[in-house]
Amino acid sequence: MSKQTALQLDHLGIAVSDIEAALDLYSRQLGLAITAIEDVPQQGIRAYHLKCGETVIELLEATDPEGPIGRFLEKKGPGIHHMALRVENVQTAAQAMSKAGYRVIGEPSTGAGGKTILFLHPASTGGVLLELCQIRP
Amino acid sequence: MSKQTALQLDHLGIAVSDIEAALDLYSRQLGLAITAIEDVPQQGIRAYHLKCGETVIELLEATDPEGPIGRFLEKKGPGIHHMALRVENVQTAAQAMSKAGYRVIGEPSTGAGGKTILFLHPASTGGVLLELCQIRP
Repeated sequence: MSKQTALQLDHLGIAVSDIEAALDLYSRQLGLAITAIEDVPQQGIRAYHLKCGETVIELLEATDPEGPIGRFLEKKGPGIHHMALRVENVQTAAQAMSKAGYRVIGEPSTGAGGKTILFLHPASTGGVLLELCQIRP
Repeated sequence: MSKQTALQLDHLGIAVSDIEAALDLYSRQLGLAITAIEDVPQQGIRAYHLKCGETVIELLEATDPEGPIGRFLEKKGPGIHHMALRVENVQTAAQAMSKAGYRVIGEPSTGAGGKTILFLHPASTGGVLLELCQIRP
């Protein structure tokens, strides 16, 4: 297994315009437990983490209409925003994928839960905003 | 735990317009194993299943431009198409969700791998085409 092998689906990010309705669906109807609520002011979002088996459904509420989720909601409306795959080493994966012609967005940074994260541009990944993330030791 | 509790993310369906490019990304670059390739002529799709931890990434190729994936690709282009949550009993879940005001599409039917499946309309689920599925004993 190489360091860029996807180990599991880390989380699925869903942009929501009505957080109460989304919590009603995923938590009350489908019984998923809310394990964290995290404000990320520099991205203009509040993220609600709901545990679903080994993965997490991340409900993303815009706290700033000019942030990435605010703009996504404005342009496309609510729905699935990104898919995050966990890898052993984001830096190694980014280098290999960049070399293979995939469009890496920026440099690895620190995301929710202290993970190292990196996004690939959907134009190079068949329309999927793909996040690679790594749990820090 | 009720019979409508989501047990895990069963799979994530991704509509692809270039299956070779998608396999290059998920299989060759990210190391996911292809565990099944399934033709579903009545839906006009060919589905490639790639194992990712406990879940599956399902790459959906249109074999009929008038089928649901063909129309999705025509309208929105490639990208994430639906999210499938596994429940213990689809029928029970459908009844409870319908009663709670969610728009259930049709009746439970048999999907890929012999599972019992049912879709909820994205208009009632915050823009997410949500599939409920049940493994048959």
